[in-house]
Amino acid sequence: MTSQNVEQLSVNTIRTLSIDAVQAANSGHPGAPLGMAPFGYVLWQKFLRHNPAHPEWPGRDRFVLSAGHASMLIYSLLHLTGYEAMTLDDLKNFRQWGYHTPGHPEFFHTKGLDATTGPLGQGAAMTVGMALAEAHLAARYNREGFEIFNNHTYGVLGDGDLQEGINHESAALAGHLKLHKLIWLHDDNHVQLDTATDKAESEDTAARFRAYGWNVLRVEDGNDLGAIEGAIKEAQGSDRPTLIQIRTIIGFGSPRAGTSKAHGEPLGAEGVAETKKALGWDYPAFTVPDEVRAHMNARARGAQLEADWEQLLAGYRAAHPEFGREVDALLARELPDNLTELLPTYETGGKAVATRNASGEVINALAAAVPGLMGGSADLSGSTKTTIKDGGEVEAGEYAGRNVLFGVREFGMAAAGNGLSLYGGLRPLVGTFLVFADYLKPAFRLSAIQMQPVTYVLTHDSIGLGEDGPTHQPIDQLAMLRAVPGAHVIRPADANETAAAWLMALEYDKGPTALALSRQDLPILPRNIEGVKKGAYVVRDAEQPALILLASGSEVSLALASAEALAEQGIQARVVSMPCMEVFREQEASYRDSVLTPGVRRVAIEAASKGPWYEWVGTDGAVIGMEGFGASAPAKVLFEKFGFSVENVVKVARGLLT
Amino acid sequence: MTSQNVEQLSVNTIRTLSIDAVQAANSGHPGAPLGMAPFGYVLWQKFLRHNPAHPEWPGRDRFVLSAGHASMLIYSLLHLTGYEAMTLDDLKNFRQWGYHTPGHPEFFHTKGLDATTGPLGQGAAMTVGMALAEAHLAARYNREGFEIFNNHTYGVLGDGDLQEGINHESAALAGHLKLHKLIWLHDDNHVQLDTATDKAESEDTAARFRAYGWNVLRVEDGNDLGAIEGAIKEAQGSDRPTLIQIRTIIGFGSPRAGTSKAHGEPLGAEGVAETKKALGWDYPAFTVPDEVRAHMNARARGAQLEADWEQLLAGYRAAHPEFGREVDALLARELPDNLTELLPTYETGGKAVATRNASGEVINALAAAVPGLMGGSADLSGSTKTTIKDGGEVEAGEYAGRNVLFGVREFGMAAAGNGLSLYGGLRPLVGTFLVFADYLKPAFRLSAIQMQPVTYVLTHDSIGLGEDGPTHQPIDQLAMLRAVPGAHVIRPADANETAAAWLMALEYDKGPTALALSRQDLPILPRNIEGVKKGAYVVRDAEQPALILLASGSEVSLALASAEALAEQGIQARVVSMPCMEVFREQEASYRDSVLTPGVRRVAIEAASKGPWYEWVGTDGAVIGMEGFGASAPAKVLFEKFGFSVENVVKVARGLLT
Repeated sequence: MTSQNVEQLSVNTIRTLSIDAVQAANSGHPGAPLGMAPFGYVLWQKFLRHNPAHPEWPGRDRFVLSAGHASMLIYSLLHLTGYEAMTLDDLKNFRQWGYHTPGHPEFFHTKGLDATTGPLGQGAAMTVGMALAEAHLAARYNREGFEIFNNHTYGVLGDGDLQEGINHESAALAGHLKLHKLIWLHDDNHVQLDTATDKAESEDTAARFRAYGWNVLRVEDGNDLGAIEGAIKEAQGSDRPTLIQIRTIIGFGSPRAGTSKAHGEPLGAEGVAETKKALGWDYPAFTVPDEVRAHMNARARGAQLEADWEQLLAGYRAAHPEFGREVDALLARELPDNLTELLPTYETGGKAVATRNASGEVINALAAAVPGLMGGSADLSGSTKTTIKDGGEVEAGEYAGRNVLFGVREFGMAAAGNGLSLYGGLRPLVGTFLVFADYLKPAFRLSAIQMQPVTYVLTHDSIGLGEDGPTHQPIDQLAMLRAVPGAHVIRPADANETAAAWLMALEYDKGPTALALSRQDLPILPRNIEGVKKGAYVVRDAEQPALILLASGSEVSLALASAEALAEQGIQARVVSMPCMEVFREQEASYRDSVLTPGVRRVAIEAASKGPWYEWVGTDGAVIGMEGFGASAPAKVLFEKFGFSVENVVKVARGLLT
Repeated sequence: MTSQNVEQLSVNTIRTLSIDAVQAANSGHPGAPLGMAPFGYVLWQKFLRHNPAHPEWPGRDRFVLSAGHASMLIYSLLHLTGYEAMTLDDLKNFRQWGYHTPGHPEFFHTKGLDATTGPLGQGAAMTVGMALAEAHLAARYNREGFEIFNNHTYGVLGDGDLQEGINHESAALAGHLKLHKLIWLHDDNHVQLDTATDKAESEDTAARFRAYGWNVLRVEDGNDLGAIEGAIKEAQGSDRPTLIQIRTIIGFGSPRAGTSKAHGEPLGAEGVAETKKALGWDYPAFTVPDEVRAHMNARARGAQLEADWEQLLAGYRAAHPEFGREVDALLARELPDNLTELLPTYETGGKAVATRNASGEVINALAAAVPGLMGGSADLSGSTKTTIKDGGEVEAGEYAGRNVLFGVREFGMAAAGNGLSLYGGLRPLVGTFLVFADYLKPAFRLSAIQMQPVTYVLTHDSIGLGEDGPTHQPIDQLAMLRAVPGAHVIRPADANETAAAWLMALEYDKGPTALALSRQDLPILPRNIEGVKKGAYVVRDAEQPALILLASGSEVSLALASAEALAEQGIQARVVSMPCMEVFREQEASYRDSVLTPGVRRVAIEAASKGPWYEWVGTDGAVIGMEGFGASAPAKVLFEKFGFSVENVVKVARGLLT
């Protein structure tokens, strides 16, 4: 052992902890950590600014292992650098119930992670948002001598990350915005799960990144610690984001080195033994040599870094008290108390307003009071009304703007939204048409898994968009979003409900909120913010109703008109607006029963897939929804043709009662 | 007018028909057709092999307008070249109910389209599948002197198509496979919806495509018909796929030329008038000058092309009768009569089998009888068991293989699957983990809109995958897929149900089928193919059941065990396996009532979002499902912890009955 210097010994400790853990779990991915250990070591040991005693320290560098299956790399690093919650016991119980070492890194479950990764491409995509957050907050709040926002963001990508489409969106966006403090390390091991990489791709990755305006560096030997250090140093000096391609060998040291067999299964006891022999390692399993523990422990360094930063921040607060308060409030994600008062009010029965327009008005009414609110749309800001009017635009080198032109990159946008949120302080919004929520679904799920309060502004929310036709008419998207645990999906019925919906979105900090908003104008209903905030409420009541009509969004007005028509026929119906099923589900039973009185038959109306409504109407109710993909024609024609007419609602309702 | 030659007059006819139609609809996208008209004209007039009298002619070139918002370009071309179903009346009623001119091109609605487009990036991605289909069928079936599969595939892409992530996946795949008969025309107009393109991107697109191994050509003046013709000719001679960048001016001739204002709104009556003036056009609206009609009509040419091809095919049938029959059967998408007999049978109570493994066995049992079956997975063929064992692999220049290594490109894979299917003859399958259905959702939707029978093999279908943890455990995906109109989602309970599910997938030709398959072994149930084919059936009955337990997939065995436990406590329960809700919904009421007897309370069990089950259990039943994202631990532990145990099912069932 003494023949290895402490650096090499540290690298091999990362390697052996990783394969021991995979072997103990009898499942996992040993190959990647074996190859990545040298650059993981160099980055964490020589560059990464973090404080193991305070994983959430806002001044830290961000590190995202986009190739999340290599999770043992980061768990080893967390343990070795001194994160208390990452014990040796956690490593020994990799992938077991109740430990901090899940198969893929899970933010919120494990302290010291900056993101949840595993779904390929998204980790790297989130680093673009993190780097943008840093640049944006620095531009807005840093002052001469007070660089309080000043960190690098590092991503580690495998070949799979680079093959994913989102990589194009993220890299193109980062290159366009010249996010020069973003550094990606490409674990260039030439092997993917099925095969050698050259069986599935033949792109010149360096040329592709140069085409995006990136700085591209290459380390030919992934075991060359000095070369890795030099490359990272050079990257830090670049005026553009940098991709460092590091030629590694998957499963380095193991009998399966350099093959796809090394990717996703344990090496076996014998393979582990052979690997350790090849690495010149003869400690028992899960050993951390004392000199490695001493060498890699980052607590003292981390404490000093944070203390220096705290001192800087104290000076900033003194020199710039107003900004200091704003930064403190931002970092604590505080909302002002008077948000409700700031909301616009729309007069009942007044001029009809599209809820997307109302949303735009609400965004602008709240923008000053909620400085963390920022974001943009995927080349649809004119349509989604997401622009903060005096917020300015983010451009390369000019990051203070609150409006981001994400381009036609829905998925990259939403993943960047997650990164903006994960960075801390910001309350990002991202916008596109509801139907194109399909394109960003994987990132919406990651918003929810990571419990990030990103607001998705999804407009053109039904066949009510009219002439653009089936490809643009969302049918299945509401059901898709509502199925995601922890997410809130709100489809407001009018401008007043839209204001309340935004309030809910800002007040909910345990996950994303999707706002489904109309292209077309909707009549103004009585303002009932408390009702909306309960997820569903009675809009029109009747004594001893024979029927409850439930609806969301544009169909609430139809339900009201239908109730009038039914009343003329002697049938008393209650009308319930249900903008948010998830929140209604959480209300007390007494409230739920007061809205949906048990035993009263129900008709639900929503111009979308019917599935989500059976929970509320049961097998003896009816759902008026969409069974096909819509058609291209003016909205009015479509609502009529597809059964969203008073005539049809009355017919269905009467059919139910006979 | 006489000052314009017939070529220029034809180009301007496309332009004026387009803006007249947008103006009549008072909605739509006038800018793109104005800029694209010259290359649209050159491609269709001088190159495109098609037969307006028989839009489905298998020997035709394929043309996909990926920038689907420019739909009036293709509607104009269809009308001018002589497609009977595209009347002047259709053009005059652009975007109206009941006409063949929806806002975006809708395959199956309008004869002459090769794909539905509008959701950006996907049209181009489908052309990769079409080009692959041609290369594959040519390699398998063409014989010396009989080039029966021999066509080009053209895609038209806007800047938005190129920004989408899927463009990376598609272009990388096409470049890797050297699909040299694929030609993309990039409408390089420097403008997107929100802004000038340079506000959102700064990539060197030509360099990016060269990095993928594409041939890249450039036409500097989008009005230069000769240069366009030269470039297309050059592209046809390339040994690689070609991107032709054509510098056009959005809204050419209009007062809004070159600005994003030209993109998505009508020009107004005055704008139309000014544009026509600038184009030197003084006919009334919707005029097709006689000389243009004569010049562009492609019926005679098309009839000759098809006749020549038919003659070739006749010779082929004579020279190679066996292949001839196979090709005829393929093109008619015929299935052999004996499919059911070919299915493997698994012995009840025999060795437990993971349904993903059973699926692999079924694929291989049917591969010889269903020659159109081909496809692959997104770098997970070892896990998804999608490989046709003696099928060979598709490689650059070697296209006869039936297994495609799609790389980590789920979305590009699924869109290519749509293209493979749209080409005709093939029955593509695509595979990944169920959780990554998120990544391909937009293409799944387009499979359904286009009614294409693509089979999605989605494995690792629940927390049953175990240690990989929350990012890999599908929760919301089943609800997401079930919400898509026209799609079938089948989650078989065992190997026998898996065999039946594949039969259903092959027999269903009106849309995609998603198979949700287990990673873990599942006990073998009694074989009941007819039951599975009805979507749900009784697996265990009881006289006068007090309760119905409904389940799918791995939870059916749990339901059976729970029914046994309940019986021991004196509660008689029926167990229903419901592998496919969509098909069950279509059964006659008498059958449905025989399975779900009205009035009998129900407990549904599925390790996924609960939403879809309320349709079957109502408000007085119970659903045992997942409310969070799972956890990383062995499968057995997870099922226990999350309530998928006999103990919990019995508890919930008893709670319902008291």
